[in-house]
Amino acid sequence: MNKHISDLQLAYMAGFIDGDGSIYAQMISNNNYKFQYQIRVTVAMFQHTSRIHFLQRIQSELQIGTIRKRNDSMSQLDLVGVENVQPLLLKLQPYLRIKQKQANLMLRITQQLPLAKDNPVKFLELCQLADQIANLNDSKKRTNTAEIVKTTLLDLGFIKK
Amino acid sequence: MNKHISDLQLAYMAGFIDGDGSIYAQMISNNNYKFQYQIRVTVAMFQHTSRIHFLQRIQSELQIGTIRKRNDSMSQLDLVGVENVQPLLLKLQPYLRIKQKQANLMLRITQQLPLAKDNPVKFLELCQLADQIANLNDSKKRTNTAEIVKTTLLDLGFIKK
Repeated sequence: MNKHISDLQLAYMAGFIDGDGSIYAQMISNNNYKFQYQIRVTVAMFQHTSRIHFLQRIQSELQIGTIRKRNDSMSQLDLVGVENVQPLLLKLQPYLRIKQKQANLMLRITQQLPLAKDNPVKFLELCQLADQIANLNDSKKRTNTAEIVKTTLLDLGFIKK
Repeated sequence: MNKHISDLQLAYMAGFIDGDGSIYAQMISNNNYKFQYQIRVTVAMFQHTSRIHFLQRIQSELQIGTIRKRNDSMSQLDLVGVENVQPLLLKLQPYLRIKQKQANLMLRITQQLPLAKDNPVKFLELCQLADQIANLNDSKKRTNTAEIVKTTLLDLGFIKK
């Protein structure tokens, strides 16, 4: 991401994310992964598609992210993956007020994710941190919880009861 | 309001207002006023009542505003009146992105309001600016429009068809 972004731009973005953005981690079912799930980390900002230029400006200031038009006349700027989310949250962290807890939990996930690659117990711990973020976000439509991942890890014999 | 508020605090607030705040002007029916309506100007910020401390921090940084708990588990920090809204928007204006148009229209209202006190044509002009702000906000539940005020001013003989 852009290393020359200013503190004023970051403070503005933190305010916008606190108001109309989201910081979340998902467990995505994926058979190519050892533990059958990958943890996907995302920072997202939302805006009516009629004001998509707003998201384009943020994208160009950050020099990362992809914009997608949803089918409910809203658009979304997604900043996905450890390599994007970690440097961004490290910079936003001092300015976030409402979602600072989510940012801190997310940074714990991104920092420990390399350790979890071959360690099922650590992997499950990070899924539980993802659940904690979801609880702070009042997420409702979430199917893949740490409990579901745990069942899979038990079934595959990676962990024991 | 607090004259020593920092640019970083203002940039944060602008981001938050762009995401989850509102800038609006209302025509309030009031028989004590010459033209039977007063124009009330407001900048508001919203947050779930469980995070009311967030609004209290903004209030203490601005040193203006009143907080009220609504009956839908949300709370609202209201900054009302020319004496509050004008200095605040002058400071926020450089940082607002999405609601900068509303801020500019609002500043035209607050700056011209003294001239409109005894001038029905000017008063109606400011009501039309209030309508423009409402259109930018996609306001729906609005009953007192410039057209309604115009009917009253015609009935009272302040303006002619």
